[in-house]
Amino acid sequence: MSEQAVRRRTRGGGGAARRAERSAVSFETARFIERNIPNLEMLNEEALEIIETNAETILQEIGVNFVNNPGALALWREAGADVDGERVRIPRGLARELCKTAPSSFTQHARNPERTVAIGGRNLVLAPVYGPPFVHDAKGGRRYATMEDFRNFVKLGYMSKWLHHSGGTVCEPTDIPVNKRHLDMLYAHMTLSDKPFMGSVTEPSRAQDSVDMCEILFGKEFVQQNTVMTSLININSPLTFDDVMMGSLEVYARNNQASIISPFIVGGAMAPVSVAGTLTQVMAEVLAGIAYSQLVRKGAPVIMGAFVTSIDMNSGAPTFGTPEAAQITYGVGQLARRMGLPYRSSGGFTGSKLPDAQAGYESANSLNMGLMSGVNFMLHACGWLEGGLVSSYEKFVMDADQLGTLHKMAAGIPVDENAQAMDAIREVGPGGHYLGCAHTQENFKTAFWRTGVLDYKPYEAWAEDGARDTMALASVKVEKMLADYVQPAIDPATAEALAAYVAQKKASMPDAFS
Amino acid sequence: MSEQAVRRRTRGGGGAARRAERSAVSFETARFIERNIPNLEMLNEEALEIIETNAETILQEIGVNFVNNPGALALWREAGADVDGERVRIPRGLARELCKTAPSSFTQHARNPERTVAIGGRNLVLAPVYGPPFVHDAKGGRRYATMEDFRNFVKLGYMSKWLHHSGGTVCEPTDIPVNKRHLDMLYAHMTLSDKPFMGSVTEPSRAQDSVDMCEILFGKEFVQQNTVMTSLININSPLTFDDVMMGSLEVYARNNQASIISPFIVGGAMAPVSVAGTLTQVMAEVLAGIAYSQLVRKGAPVIMGAFVTSIDMNSGAPTFGTPEAAQITYGVGQLARRMGLPYRSSGGFTGSKLPDAQAGYESANSLNMGLMSGVNFMLHACGWLEGGLVSSYEKFVMDADQLGTLHKMAAGIPVDENAQAMDAIREVGPGGHYLGCAHTQENFKTAFWRTGVLDYKPYEAWAEDGARDTMALASVKVEKMLADYVQPAIDPATAEALAAYVAQKKASMPDAFS
Repeated sequence: MSEQAVRRRTRGGGGAARRAERSAVSFETARFIERNIPNLEMLNEEALEIIETNAETILQEIGVNFVNNPGALALWREAGADVDGERVRIPRGLARELCKTAPSSFTQHARNPERTVAIGGRNLVLAPVYGPPFVHDAKGGRRYATMEDFRNFVKLGYMSKWLHHSGGTVCEPTDIPVNKRHLDMLYAHMTLSDKPFMGSVTEPSRAQDSVDMCEILFGKEFVQQNTVMTSLININSPLTFDDVMMGSLEVYARNNQASIISPFIVGGAMAPVSVAGTLTQVMAEVLAGIAYSQLVRKGAPVIMGAFVTSIDMNSGAPTFGTPEAAQITYGVGQLARRMGLPYRSSGGFTGSKLPDAQAGYESANSLNMGLMSGVNFMLHACGWLEGGLVSSYEKFVMDADQLGTLHKMAAGIPVDENAQAMDAIREVGPGGHYLGCAHTQENFKTAFWRTGVLDYKPYEAWAEDGARDTMALASVKVEKMLADYVQPAIDPATAEALAAYVAQKKASMPDAFS
Repeated sequence: MSEQAVRRRTRGGGGAARRAERSAVSFETARFIERNIPNLEMLNEEALEIIETNAETILQEIGVNFVNNPGALALWREAGADVDGERVRIPRGLARELCKTAPSSFTQHARNPERTVAIGGRNLVLAPVYGPPFVHDAKGGRRYATMEDFRNFVKLGYMSKWLHHSGGTVCEPTDIPVNKRHLDMLYAHMTLSDKPFMGSVTEPSRAQDSVDMCEILFGKEFVQQNTVMTSLININSPLTFDDVMMGSLEVYARNNQASIISPFIVGGAMAPVSVAGTLTQVMAEVLAGIAYSQLVRKGAPVIMGAFVTSIDMNSGAPTFGTPEAAQITYGVGQLARRMGLPYRSSGGFTGSKLPDAQAGYESANSLNMGLMSGVNFMLHACGWLEGGLVSSYEKFVMDADQLGTLHKMAAGIPVDENAQAMDAIREVGPGGHYLGCAHTQENFKTAFWRTGVLDYKPYEAWAEDGARDTMALASVKVEKMLADYVQPAIDPATAEALAAYVAQKKASMPDAFS
């Protein structure tokens, strides 16, 4: 069945889109974070200079490979690089010079202007988990992800107050052919949510489909003049830029759409086993990648990224929420700020198989470091489980709840007269209590961050309620959210045009499952 | 009883203690943390000055109460304060001036010199949970704590590599009379561990017993010249210093032993509902408390403390690991550094009833803020559950494992030639991998922090092993540790003298259970 057929069949009865518009309820979303607190500067000037100098040495002496990409090689040759086969050696300073045309911040528009985000500067935009082929929930356990799961995660993201972005591949809809699923995924982001989203990068043609669908959603002219997608371009570390990812980057850059240019590194495997060595390689890779984006189109918006985990040298398993990953995240943040570029990293990381204590520790470690390291775009901020193999329903709402703490921390500490509370201290005096005083009455509603998931009940009340752990509490919340979901309003003609595009594209090619 | 008499009596016997000495196995303990990374300075100069000025205003205009303590009032009057009944109003600047004789750092000796800690400066000493009347483990659930539990937690603390301190009331041994349990607790710390520990504060006479027992353990002269206990003196916020706590403080100060002078604050109840207001009150309280310690004995070692939680304004329940508590922790750290005093806060905080995801998030939030806020002495670093009502066996080893990440983070990022890894990057080149390269072989053993609890297995192996969550994995670890425990060597005569002191003291008074 195609999406178009469904639309046609329902049009007579009033139409789902129109019904959605009539009953539209807008769920509250917090504005993206503007930090009012300092970043933690982990490396000193000398260390940063060593890393930057070594990165340039890598580019000049070792170089990077642009695989299967004669166009890229030609651009590099023209720019003054030394091209030898697929190896591109970039003279010291050239890549950095080319990066200068990349904007230090940019706006990614959402179809609902209230959800539009500014990426860069002191801002932090939070986006959900990306990429898992499996899902997990308390009732159904671990299983392959389907399109229904995908739509559910988009709905949860839309309803999550502290999540600014709908993300991209919130899970892999494995029941849809590989060459068609990007169409359904984009359609879901565009119609089930009104937050900004990411485009497809699994083939340059799918990146083009993403641009085409955005032109339907936003209008052709608007897309050419504004950024409406921020997509994830992974570098094949070490030092390799493959044609699929670069092909997608080229589509996005030519269309003025943003790319996150992000090495994908398991430390000790795709980069040296040391933090400084990894930082050096990351720096070389993003310098080359961002420079290339600017060769494709000067001024194309980019984000300097890093996806870095450690490795458990016993088992070879990747590890998450570790101190070394945090050190690298802090370091790349400093390097990005020195480049004057927006910075992407990851939060909500864990290697755990369940949303248990391990998941809590590792995710909180990642979320805290993301805030303190000056990240501008945090991918995987909620829902990530089992090293990225699993999108967890419960962990999605647990993490999304914790994202509220980042907002509060980032706001800093007010010291105005009301915050100083000297009248309250005078009123209460030694030995009194503040519960009933005027200052408390006036301020208590907004004074403290409040969880929507965690349990603060007294033991007896908690035990009577079933002695539920966090996963069980989150499971209830997931069910309630999905039951309460209401689709955001969308112009029926636009929705129909998008559905038609998807149907036509799907009809134009045979199914592929790998 | 004197040290000498005890020695003489025990010299003849063979005894368990000598057997323990013969079979002694020493478990590895990491040296206390010396930070090689910056602190996060959350407040700017202007905000800090407002808080400091307001704190002095509180002391001058509102004052503090020293309850049931004519001696303290006399000392304050003599020092130039305005004493009116139990109210002590301290002229602007006086408390701060008095605080100047407190040392900026001090050494707390352990009976094993390798475990001696330096408290202050850029150091961080980690100590376990303090105070819970209940314990919890996976098999036995939640129950009143007993002396056996207490001994078990001392054993676990002794065996925990990343824990520097044996702590104090690791749980309340509720099966021992209230007026005698401090003796058994101290005996356990002194004989089952060789790490530094805390003294009793529940009655001045019990503080004196603590000093007496230390004189047996360390020698009378040594105790008078060195600090061998760091004990927890809570201020009865707001602005009240009760006679029990102050009586204990007086005993410790006179004997050159360290006190943590720490307001106990549930924000919105014992302090204003705002962060800046709470910081102001904390500052006033510790200024008064530390000044008083210096009136008792100039140069007495102290730690500026803060125990701060928020409150859930719906239920009135205290909350842990929240952003407001973190903001206060960062702020007090800055105030302490400006005073030139060691700083105590708390890690491992959670309101959860189980060592589940909530416990993980909240504890990791607390541990991270403790490191980044410049804490010198972190109490409750492991084992805390249910808002401090419960010492959790599993959470003890889970948290203690996470403390390893603080060590690694604090070490900073080396950028020496080996860390730069340029040879490795040259050797591997674009498209290669680092698993087998020389640099990885030479460095992998120490490159990454390694957990002793968390699970990194592939899903299938984990499922085959019973699909255990973190609590279940930790439970196995607890059992193994307690089974593997070996008592550290102790001079049999000393152990016997301590036992004799405890027996004699217990025999000298009737049991009291409240």
